[in-house]
Amino acid sequence: MKIVTLVGGVGGAKLALGLSRVLPAEDLTIVVNTGDDTWMYGLRICPDMDTIMYTLAGLVDPVNGWGIAGDTTHALEALRRYGEDAWFRLGDQDMATHIIRTRYLRAGRSLTDVTALLTKKLGIPQTILPMTDSPVATMVDTVEYGEIDFQTYFVRHRWQPQVKGLRLDGIEVASVPEAVTRALNAADAVLIAPSNPWLSIDPILAVPGLRDQLMARPIPRVAISPIVGGAAIKGPAAKMMVELGHEASASAVFAHYGDLLNGYVYDVTDHSLSLSAPHTAQFKTVMKTDDDKEHLARVVIEWIQTWMSM
Amino acid sequence: MKIVTLVGGVGGAKLALGLSRVLPAEDLTIVVNTGDDTWMYGLRICPDMDTIMYTLAGLVDPVNGWGIAGDTTHALEALRRYGEDAWFRLGDQDMATHIIRTRYLRAGRSLTDVTALLTKKLGIPQTILPMTDSPVATMVDTVEYGEIDFQTYFVRHRWQPQVKGLRLDGIEVASVPEAVTRALNAADAVLIAPSNPWLSIDPILAVPGLRDQLMARPIPRVAISPIVGGAAIKGPAAKMMVELGHEASASAVFAHYGDLLNGYVYDVTDHSLSLSAPHTAQFKTVMKTDDDKEHLARVVIEWIQTWMSM
Repeated sequence: MKIVTLVGGVGGAKLALGLSRVLPAEDLTIVVNTGDDTWMYGLRICPDMDTIMYTLAGLVDPVNGWGIAGDTTHALEALRRYGEDAWFRLGDQDMATHIIRTRYLRAGRSLTDVTALLTKKLGIPQTILPMTDSPVATMVDTVEYGEIDFQTYFVRHRWQPQVKGLRLDGIEVASVPEAVTRALNAADAVLIAPSNPWLSIDPILAVPGLRDQLMARPIPRVAISPIVGGAAIKGPAAKMMVELGHEASASAVFAHYGDLLNGYVYDVTDHSLSLSAPHTAQFKTVMKTDDDKEHLARVVIEWIQTWMSM
Repeated sequence: MKIVTLVGGVGGAKLALGLSRVLPAEDLTIVVNTGDDTWMYGLRICPDMDTIMYTLAGLVDPVNGWGIAGDTTHALEALRRYGEDAWFRLGDQDMATHIIRTRYLRAGRSLTDVTALLTKKLGIPQTILPMTDSPVATMVDTVEYGEIDFQTYFVRHRWQPQVKGLRLDGIEVASVPEAVTRALNAADAVLIAPSNPWLSIDPILAVPGLRDQLMARPIPRVAISPIVGGAAIKGPAAKMMVELGHEASASAVFAHYGDLLNGYVYDVTDHSLSLSAPHTAQFKTVMKTDDDKEHLARVVIEWIQTWMSM
């Protein structure tokens, strides 16, 4: 059963790890948000991509859920010596990823190619693909600072500014990489990870053509709610939903994805919802341990297989 | 008394440090060889420049004479994870220098500007200038490997290959930076550091116009021999001299510089030489401690002042 999963950062990495433990490696393709990507100190940083890569490579910092376990920040501290504000934390081992990526991108390789090279060298057998090869930047319109780039909002201001709106800079000229189209065409099901719908998944769906390609596939298209009991597991999803005029709830997430979905999973602790999706299920969606991740991946896949065989 | 000193790496840094302790900061300009500069992992590395900067900033590793004291190599080890051979050692703090430099160079700033920015941020009050702003690469023709770039010769093969000749790639289109011309025109004396004449000083003198600008100045133009007792203090100078058909001696170094010099300093332990220079002196030129460096700088400057006042 070939699965394509659409993911952002930490929440997406949890599901991706679970899926990697349940599926044969060749059956899992992970399409990653690149709207968070940024230039920092002259290096191309792909935070969501790196979180996914480090997680699947077994390198990730288990406490933060991003970065490399045990990494030091000597280079970052030395950047401060040169007057850099250096509010964006980059570890020393992590720096190597950005250095290599930047070199290959500058040499004219696509992000898809570079990602394939990095994942191969890290020994990751699954396929990890960027949502697009061209630069797209999620811009956050805030009450306090006006429009700021994603990392300034998320890291520098710790997602505390009040969000008025979002804009995807460069999205009009972005296109779906061939590898993503191939994966979608071969998929038996598509899973949208419990990532932030606005910040992590919408950029993927906004790549011109991608949503249409998804909709054209007569397969299970299932999202897992990142909102549990009206709150986000991590990050600004719930806060931002309210600021953007929505209710912070699993049903509002479902409504946001609209007719893209024919299946929806939300947490077992939530009130049972009456949704328009043909298939809904409640599972334990909060993933604290690796066993939790594997369990969620397993029950979701088994559940999808059940209604596929009906 | 305004001094311009022409330097390479470690030997040059020793004299530069000595001079920095003897002269007011505004009276010392250090012109640095950039023939060793290279691209490594997509970053622009200027080894001689960095050695001078780290030395004058008090950051240099006292054992190696290059790199930053106490630096770690976590990023370098992580580069190996991506399949990089990574034979060129770069520390984590050191990496910050290359990252910043590369970013500014890519943004179109000149190496002269970037160096001014880096030295200012490191709190270095003296002026450090690259010999030219355009890329020049010292290529080493070897018996074993044919023509290889300098770092491959020097670091990878630890200067063991037999040298047949040297070529400065890009030197025809290089030009003397305005800041170097201004420093030379304002100088009361020029000191050639006890650096490798072929590898460190010749590239500087080969920048079109630079030697002529030097020769046009009716001031003391003094070299300090890097060869003591027929041997180099550090590095391949003596070995290379023999390979290139010269005698490894202080007098052969003097002969190499030719009419550029009107003064020459060589070691007190050498046999007294009969040289064609108007002014020669023998001092203790081996600089082991910082006091040695300061002492040599002081006696050379006092000696030059003596014959200037004659």
